[in-house]
Amino acid sequence: MPRDRLEEFAAIFYPKSHVVIGASANVRKFGGRFLGALRSFGYQGKLYAVNPQESQILGLETYARVGDIPQPVDSASVAVPARFVPGIVAECLAKGIKAVQILSAGFSEVGEEGERLEREVVKTAAKGIRVIGPNCFGVYCPAGGLTILPGERLSKESGPVAFISQSGGYAIRVPRRAGGWGIRFSKIVSYGNACDVNECDLLEYLAQDPETKVITGYIEGVKDGPRFFKLLQEVCQTKPVILWKGGLTPGGARAVYSHTASLAGEEAIWDAVFEQSGAIMVNSIEELLDTTLAFVHLPPLRGRSVCVISGGGGIGVTAADACERAGLSVPLFPAELQSKLKSIVPPAGGSARNPVDVGSPFPPPAMLGAVMETVLTDGDVDMVIVDELELARLSGITLDRTERFAGSQGEPAQILIEAKMRFGKPIIMVLPVEATESDAIEFEGARRKLRDYYLEQGIPVFLTLGRAARALANCVGYYQRRNAISSSK
Amino acid sequence: MPRDRLEEFAAIFYPKSHVVIGASANVRKFGGRFLGALRSFGYQGKLYAVNPQESQILGLETYARVGDIPQPVDSASVAVPARFVPGIVAECLAKGIKAVQILSAGFSEVGEEGERLEREVVKTAAKGIRVIGPNCFGVYCPAGGLTILPGERLSKESGPVAFISQSGGYAIRVPRRAGGWGIRFSKIVSYGNACDVNECDLLEYLAQDPETKVITGYIEGVKDGPRFFKLLQEVCQTKPVILWKGGLTPGGARAVYSHTASLAGEEAIWDAVFEQSGAIMVNSIEELLDTTLAFVHLPPLRGRSVCVISGGGGIGVTAADACERAGLSVPLFPAELQSKLKSIVPPAGGSARNPVDVGSPFPPPAMLGAVMETVLTDGDVDMVIVDELELARLSGITLDRTERFAGSQGEPAQILIEAKMRFGKPIIMVLPVEATESDAIEFEGARRKLRDYYLEQGIPVFLTLGRAARALANCVGYYQRRNAISSSK
Repeated sequence: MPRDRLEEFAAIFYPKSHVVIGASANVRKFGGRFLGALRSFGYQGKLYAVNPQESQILGLETYARVGDIPQPVDSASVAVPARFVPGIVAECLAKGIKAVQILSAGFSEVGEEGERLEREVVKTAAKGIRVIGPNCFGVYCPAGGLTILPGERLSKESGPVAFISQSGGYAIRVPRRAGGWGIRFSKIVSYGNACDVNECDLLEYLAQDPETKVITGYIEGVKDGPRFFKLLQEVCQTKPVILWKGGLTPGGARAVYSHTASLAGEEAIWDAVFEQSGAIMVNSIEELLDTTLAFVHLPPLRGRSVCVISGGGGIGVTAADACERAGLSVPLFPAELQSKLKSIVPPAGGSARNPVDVGSPFPPPAMLGAVMETVLTDGDVDMVIVDELELARLSGITLDRTERFAGSQGEPAQILIEAKMRFGKPIIMVLPVEATESDAIEFEGARRKLRDYYLEQGIPVFLTLGRAARALANCVGYYQRRNAISSSK
Repeated sequence: MPRDRLEEFAAIFYPKSHVVIGASANVRKFGGRFLGALRSFGYQGKLYAVNPQESQILGLETYARVGDIPQPVDSASVAVPARFVPGIVAECLAKGIKAVQILSAGFSEVGEEGERLEREVVKTAAKGIRVIGPNCFGVYCPAGGLTILPGERLSKESGPVAFISQSGGYAIRVPRRAGGWGIRFSKIVSYGNACDVNECDLLEYLAQDPETKVITGYIEGVKDGPRFFKLLQEVCQTKPVILWKGGLTPGGARAVYSHTASLAGEEAIWDAVFEQSGAIMVNSIEELLDTTLAFVHLPPLRGRSVCVISGGGGIGVTAADACERAGLSVPLFPAELQSKLKSIVPPAGGSARNPVDVGSPFPPPAMLGAVMETVLTDGDVDMVIVDELELARLSGITLDRTERFAGSQGEPAQILIEAKMRFGKPIIMVLPVEATESDAIEFEGARRKLRDYYLEQGIPVFLTLGRAARALANCVGYYQRRNAISSSK
């Protein structure tokens, strides 16, 4: 069993006091920018600044050295040139600080001298202080009041998703973009060179963390393959782990080496890791967020069988193709169910076979309601995808430009939400960006409001059917592998 | 050789006079809606209305029957119940009308009686009138003043791309969404059941059409497989043909049958058709538009070798992965070129290996310019992808909210455009939606303006690197297959 990390890592995520070493009032300096981010994000603990050149920074208690601070301090951020870092970490240890995140770059990722500096830090860490980084953007944890660099505008709201990232760029991009999915994070860790705290330690912590329900990550290489694999298997039994593994192609692997000096490993090995651990492999930021969205909003998916409700023949055909290409299935409905549906959908332009074609993208609400009820009562499917309905109302191209969002949130919106509540089966929506032009931005605004409305009601909304199908297949795959691994034990 | 279709189809695309049969002033009726669309789109020829129940519609010359019109008429649109259609088409033939598009549904797609009606139409067509449809949305051709239903707001500007569609839904969705890609169309044909004019006839026409440079299509089934294949091979020698084939999965094939009563055919057969004809297979509306965009803006691509310029290590790693997964390659640069680039990019956080990492998403313009020049002069690559640079300026999350579009269109924008002009090599941009939230819509507006700016300068802009790579690989594949087929003759 993994050790209890909750207590051990408390200082990393929920420090009652924190010191920024290399602090500055100048936001053009790295330490200044980080300090500014932390203050503007609203860190509530006691905050200190360390800088030997300044006596007072932004009204904070400012000291020349960390040892000069009279009170005890839980954790530190370090933003000073690499050559000073080993000494600073040693001073932090002496001060009794329990955790330090090193934002500075210039360590093992740049060559021999950097490697030497990093080894010194590792030696100090072993004596009783945990180190995040170096070469990282730090830790985001809204419940602890912490944000990464440059994350002053990230949401202050906590959520069920954790993200650990070997890339600083993705540590900031993922939460920035995730707003559009309605996804909030419990913790984000940009862990950089992982000289002490590494992906395995973080996985152990997040597995135990009560704030975290879904674990996601971007990783390039792992320090200890066997430990990582064993841990993944264990963690996946209780929480889904969604991993984006960079460097699985030859070109990507070469780039990994110049980025974090990690060895990326072979694609075949990684395929086996995912297959046998139950973790979910994704290949883009969009797939990571889409898959997370499915886990956040849907109950455990039991199988791959889908009913698609579309408003047009070609839309239904390509929806079925997209589902089956992703590994879902769109079964032909039995004759009895078809004949019930035939009495509801229009005779010309409709279809009762599955995909169910309601004849147009803006069906009468009563018809849509009857189709939903019939399918959810009699259809032997694991989920229902409502594909690109109501879009005409948002595009503003065919209909009067005054017919806006207020109209779109009318009865059809209620129908899906009532059906979700009554039947408890997974209902998924696809709502693409139809108004793509610069001068149609107001319609994209309306689409986003409609999307937010459904997300708030717990109905996941995807941008394309292909992306929805991929995310759902990832989700089903997780539950199926989890059950297979669990029963083989 | 195919017959000369330009003269034969002139009445379909450029009618000097047109009659709407089943016209109405009521836009809730199908014929009324179509007439309204045509007028609001601005058809410039002589327009007549036919409706036995009305003496005057919207100020047009209105007749009870088409035979009553005293002047000659080039073409007709028919929007009356299916049972009246065969008689109407016979009247059109008698009147000397050369082409008719039948918007009405209720033919072979609904069963035996519909099949009988459609056979009657085919018989009349054989006597000397060309028929588009039935069960379709008609023809869009801005140079002829024509638009499909419901296309009154589609662009009045003509462009180099043609789109033929067996699905009415996609015939309207593709041009609606294409605005965001800056793509304009020469012709769009929703050809429905294709009882007379079919996908082969249209391919022949578009191959000859001087307005059309790139042919795209959504098809579910073809009437004459061998003719279609031979024609594709011929046409692909002069113009790229990008096809989205619906119904390649079992679920999709079943849906095709209930949509257009076509037989969708086997995936293996279609794979061979694409491989041996040189046509490009796509699987979504996004891939269709992305691939079209690459053809519209880029010179013929000679090979698969890419330089990626990124602003972050993880971004570069995943960019290389995305390129190589799509079938492109991101070669390690030779030592000499690396050492030139090393003197330009930042020592910590940069990389000269390829992907070239300029250290941050907003590099100093002079540095980006020097990297571009060095790579385009000395790099033995077929194209350069500039990946997610400048985004911070648009996201508005890290920087001051007053730093808007004006700033973003400054020097870095000019650098890419000057490099394109000076070196003539393909330059591609990736500019994702980073501001996804409802209350960040103004930043999406700014991103779209920046996108439009680059598109106007002939630099294709994609939403993700994965999509860019797929489109570029499709493009290279076309040129490589074309050359192989051409040299094997």
